[in-house]
Amino acid sequence: MSKAFLFCIFFSVLFAITAAILIVVLRFHGHHPVDDDLNHTSQDFCVADLNSGIKLDGFTCKPLSKVGEADFFFSGLASPASTINTVGSAVTPADVRQIPGLNTLSISMSRVDIAPGGLNPPHIHPRATEILFIIDGELILGFLTTSNKLITKNVSKGETFVFPQGLLHFEFNNAGSPAAAISAFDSQLPGTQYVAATLFGAVPAVPEDVLAAAFRMESELVEKIKAGLSRPIIN
Amino acid sequence: MSKAFLFCIFFSVLFAITAAILIVVLRFHGHHPVDDDLNHTSQDFCVADLNSGIKLDGFTCKPLSKVGEADFFFSGLASPASTINTVGSAVTPADVRQIPGLNTLSISMSRVDIAPGGLNPPHIHPRATEILFIIDGELILGFLTTSNKLITKNVSKGETFVFPQGLLHFEFNNAGSPAAAISAFDSQLPGTQYVAATLFGAVPAVPEDVLAAAFRMESELVEKIKAGLSRPIIN
Amino acid sequence: MSKAFLFCIFFSVLFAITAAILIVVLRFHGHHPVDDDLNHTSQDFCVADLNSGIKLDGFTCKPLSKVGEADFFFSGLASPASTINTVGSAVTPADVRQIPGLNTLSISMSRVDIAPGGLNPPHIHPRATEILFIIDGELILGFLTTSNKLITKNVSKGETFVFPQGLLHFEFNNAGSPAAAISAFDSQLPGTQYVAATLFGAVPAVPEDVLAAAFRMESELVEKIKAGLSRPIIN
Amino acid sequence: MSKAFLFCIFFSVLFAITAAILIVVLRFHGHHPVDDDLNHTSQDFCVADLNSGIKLDGFTCKPLSKVGEADFFFSGLASPASTINTVGSAVTPADVRQIPGLNTLSISMSRVDIAPGGLNPPHIHPRATEILFIIDGELILGFLTTSNKLITKNVSKGETFVFPQGLLHFEFNNAGSPAAAISAFDSQLPGTQYVAATLFGAVPAVPEDVLAAAFRMESELVEKIKAGLSRPIIN
Amino acid sequence: MSKAFLFCIFFSVLFAITAAILIVVLRFHGHHPVDDDLNHTSQDFCVADLNSGIKLDGFTCKPLSKVGEADFFFSGLASPASTINTVGSAVTPADVRQIPGLNTLSISMSRVDIAPGGLNPPHIHPRATEILFIIDGELILGFLTTSNKLITKNVSKGETFVFPQGLLHFEFNNAGSPAAAISAFDSQLPGTQYVAATLFGAVPAVPEDVLAAAFRMESELVEKIKAGLSRPIIN
Amino acid sequence: MSKAFLFCIFFSVLFAITAAILIVVLRFHGHHPVDDDLNHTSQDFCVADLNSGIKLDGFTCKPLSKVGEADFFFSGLASPASTINTVGSAVTPADVRQIPGLNTLSISMSRVDIAPGGLNPPHIHPRATEILFIIDGELILGFLTTSNKLITKNVSKGETFVFPQGLLHFEFNNAGSPAAAISAFDSQLPGTQYVAATLFGAVPAVPEDVLAAAFRMESELVEKIKAGLSRPIIN
Repeated sequence: MSKAFLFCIFFSVLFAITAAILIVVLRFHGHHPVDDDLNHTSQDFCVADLNSGIKLDGFTCKPLSKVGEADFFFSGLASPASTINTVGSAVTPADVRQIPGLNTLSISMSRVDIAPGGLNPPHIHPRATEILFIIDGELILGFLTTSNKLITKNVSKGETFVFPQGLLHFEFNNAGSPAAAISAFDSQLPGTQYVAATLFGAVPAVPEDVLAAAFRMESELVEKIKAGLSRPIIN
Repeated sequence: MSKAFLFCIFFSVLFAITAAILIVVLRFHGHHPVDDDLNHTSQDFCVADLNSGIKLDGFTCKPLSKVGEADFFFSGLASPASTINTVGSAVTPADVRQIPGLNTLSISMSRVDIAPGGLNPPHIHPRATEILFIIDGELILGFLTTSNKLITKNVSKGETFVFPQGLLHFEFNNAGSPAAAISAFDSQLPGTQYVAATLFGAVPAVPEDVLAAAFRMESELVEKIKAGLSRPIIN
Repeated sequence: MSKAFLFCIFFSVLFAITAAILIVVLRFHGHHPVDDDLNHTSQDFCVADLNSGIKLDGFTCKPLSKVGEADFFFSGLASPASTINTVGSAVTPADVRQIPGLNTLSISMSRVDIAPGGLNPPHIHPRATEILFIIDGELILGFLTTSNKLITKNVSKGETFVFPQGLLHFEFNNAGSPAAAISAFDSQLPGTQYVAATLFGAVPAVPEDVLAAAFRMESELVEKIKAGLSRPIIN
Repeated sequence: MSKAFLFCIFFSVLFAITAAILIVVLRFHGHHPVDDDLNHTSQDFCVADLNSGIKLDGFTCKPLSKVGEADFFFSGLASPASTINTVGSAVTPADVRQIPGLNTLSISMSRVDIAPGGLNPPHIHPRATEILFIIDGELILGFLTTSNKLITKNVSKGETFVFPQGLLHFEFNNAGSPAAAISAFDSQLPGTQYVAATLFGAVPAVPEDVLAAAFRMESELVEKIKAGLSRPIIN
Repeated sequence: MSKAFLFCIFFSVLFAITAAILIVVLRFHGHHPVDDDLNHTSQDFCVADLNSGIKLDGFTCKPLSKVGEADFFFSGLASPASTINTVGSAVTPADVRQIPGLNTLSISMSRVDIAPGGLNPPHIHPRATEILFIIDGELILGFLTTSNKLITKNVSKGETFVFPQGLLHFEFNNAGSPAAAISAFDSQLPGTQYVAATLFGAVPAVPEDVLAAAFRMESELVEKIKAGLSRPIIN
Repeated sequence: MSKAFLFCIFFSVLFAITAAILIVVLRFHGHHPVDDDLNHTSQDFCVADLNSGIKLDGFTCKPLSKVGEADFFFSGLASPASTINTVGSAVTPADVRQIPGLNTLSISMSRVDIAPGGLNPPHIHPRATEILFIIDGELILGFLTTSNKLITKNVSKGETFVFPQGLLHFEFNNAGSPAAAISAFDSQLPGTQYVAATLFGAVPAVPEDVLAAAFRMESELVEKIKAGLSRPIIN
């Protein structure tokens, strides 16, 4: 073989290798962020690492190699929770504790089931507005403004109602059949404070004088309500 | 009558009037904000005045004398919308335009109905994360990360899935019966951008060269897709 | 006079005028934003126009020509408010309604005065955390977590305590002399909801069944508490 | 013609019209929000109506019929501003006042030109972080932390530097040729406060005792600096 | 004993155990979040773990088992700090470093004491608006707008004034007796930058040319001010 | 020596030492936060520790002893990136991954280079608005509203344009010479999603039925586009 031919082959191969390298390099350089660590290329989400020892405002992120569709999924709202308890209602949360993918994303859901005559007692979500969609039955919904005005409505299956940020509200089933609703909150962990249960059942107890003065009633009555709120649920 | 007696009467009446005034005044002074104008005593909400001539980020507030429970209520998600169209799906919004009470509260809902074989085509919400609860049927749900990873799952009635903020996602009914879902968004007006419809159907049109280069196809193909996306829905 | 001299004069004057104009123009161009309308050059604040007919999230801004130091000032927290009422306490707000300059600035104050034995009853601020500085006397302060835990402390003159965002809390004067505190909130209008007063005194009334079930007591008791909360303050 | 034929024609036409209506109706119902008023279908932006009489936090939105590409465009950063002034520098803003489309979008730009030996004097942006890209020349950039630490660097054409939120910083051209930079801010209207100019040149004047004590110098020196900061720019 | 009796006993016990379990389970299921780890059930607060090795935006949260009322309490604002220094004033902070419970809650306080003739020199808080309540004496308060306007007022015991976000301000005691104020900030750690001290005393030093040009004075004067700002406080 | 003399010496020394201690103590007490750990005295910034094993929303902070000017600096936008690829364009990011000082500061930059005829294909930033300054050449810029309206403009060197939050946009070089732009984003890590590349190139693949229905084309065409988007860049 002539030298010229070998040269030609040699440079052809060199060129081919160079081109191949360029193709790979430029392709990613142009428009595709390198994928070795999703968290470094882009924080689309920060899936909660619920078992991390480090406590934060929210949660630390799971290693991306362990993130999958299950982190954005929850099946726990599918069926009614038992409402055989003193108030005839039950709340099933679907927040960042159940759906770790909600971490940092400012939204969550819950399901409330209410037996006929049952009540989801007056409560507040200290960090969220609630919007509620009735999936079954009919409920009397109401919230209280800071000017002591009650805004209330009978809401049926398929209808929607809103409880603005931090205001006291309740859900009451005055109808003859079970009711259920799906709620959404603008917080990954809205929190719930049942005012009667917490005022009369906190540990340690709220001073009796405070309760007596707040409700302008005698100490015996305070004791009676306390007892009522802690009596066995099934009797 | 003696002068003393008259004096006594006079001061008794004076005292009674003063006491009455004090009762009223102190009562409100103590703990009850004056209720003449709720907006001045406290902004618990700012119900959208959808017909105000003034345009803002969000909406101006309705006069409080006109605010009522109807402003926090919507019945339009109760029944399925018709899915007899080219994509076999329909979205019914329940945002600040339908529920004026959502103004300033960073949350809203919508209902999506999808016929068997139907699709809610790939789209983004430029201002919101979405959490979705299936109320009927079964859907293939998927979203794309900025690292070109598809996160997808078959989700059935009663189950919940999440599409993180601003990422491209779709909902596909690959099953034999209609499906429906209720979505919540962390925005009072999340907005929706269907990428195929807007790229190939915007007014004025996206330059053909841009579409050809973006999809690396010839102009004829661009024209064909444009035609397809605008062809009659029933044929 | 020679033409050259006149030319010289003419150009000297021309140069002087040009220089003068340049001085004025460049000076402002360089570093001093034009001051004709402060709102256009920079929004350092947006002083509330409390009498504007337009209602917003917050308030519209006063014309700048009418903004002065009085808009950032309030003298109403200087002296104790009367605590001669049923609860023995009084709150004086210093929020955007009293200090229009607070509009858009996410902060406000209030003063609470509590007579010996008096109580600022359990309440929530739906939109704010509170930090409290005791200026007189001694108070039992407490807040309830969403896990029904009471966090409480005796706090004296000069000391500081915190009530986190949206959680139920109270201030009780168990000492023999009047107490007073200055509170700050991370909201221009934190709002206040007294839970006993609003549950038993709202208009229209919260349904009796809801109250009975929430506190697990009979209807007569509900009526009795309602009557107590609305009875004359001085008797 | 037979009756049957006419019937057939009649129903065919009826069917065609119905189908045509359905096509139009369903098409929009399915996926295309009605376009009659963009602000009602979706707030993608809220272009500032700079001439509205209503003053807000930010600006009201222009009627959508008047929104166009010009609202998102600015040509004023293209050429250097004159730096013939006492400090040898000039800032050209490109914020919501120049680009009304920036309203509500939390970002803006500016251009700074600095002559050899010129200085953009120490200043703060009370509402923004700044990131700066040098388009010409070379600058000494520096900012001061709240712990009195100077973080400084020589930065040349094509390089980038950051001034964190609200911290005092300066840009100094110690080189022999003009320099220019493009800055971006995370605010639609970051505001600027030149500390020397404002302390010694505010109207009304900062009390002389305050300045003397702040800089620990005698009143005569305060007067001298005041005079210096207000002397003619060209001499 | 008969078999029937044993059976009866056996099932009674079985029933009792089941009921007991149900009581416990349903009770919590209904309305009481499980209390084993407060952080998982609800993030009402995230008390700063000031000694954690991990540095964040803000702080990590203390283990809940170690959270108590002390985390929300501070006694350090009770008495005046010494004002025997060159400026005759002293600031005592009460932010997240002193009150770990403030972490994530966007609020804090401080106390400023100012001797007769003393000054809290012109400074900025890069991350906060300040609202100030005078607890003793009388102060001249002032802030500067970005349009070089001084807004100033004599404010006395019991009165309140506001310094908007990021603007330069000062507090001057022109009266014959000591003054003190309690300030609140809408940040857990507002930061403070004294402009004279930092411009003339930073480490490393701000270039002399920058200071000379900023204040339009000669280098000797810069040196003199530097020396003044660093001279012994007691002489 | 007399005792008096020794006494005198002794007390002089004692006084000197006390004074020295007071000087140091009061000086810092008065106005200078202790500097031993910047993070504890004030969080002016939280420089990203890019190599920390702990993943968060954003990044943990570097130890302050390791923070320096390099953390706020980047030189990588200085020169054009190669545009020899299938789309004729390249993006160089300058976000928190390149400039760790941007962590928590809600701003970043990037540079885009586009060859004649090249395209930065239609894409979205799920977490940011973009403002763009042309440093070279001329580009056709366009974005799509959620009402399918294209807002587009020819923009030349020195001019500025805006792409509002989350909306689909593109940059096309229809001119005969290379173009380059500097973009700023109101996010420390805006993220980018190229819609054609991700829909047709994601891993795992978006279901073919979804793509066919979304673009209303046959499966073969879907396959053809997929192939085109993945074909070698240099041929």
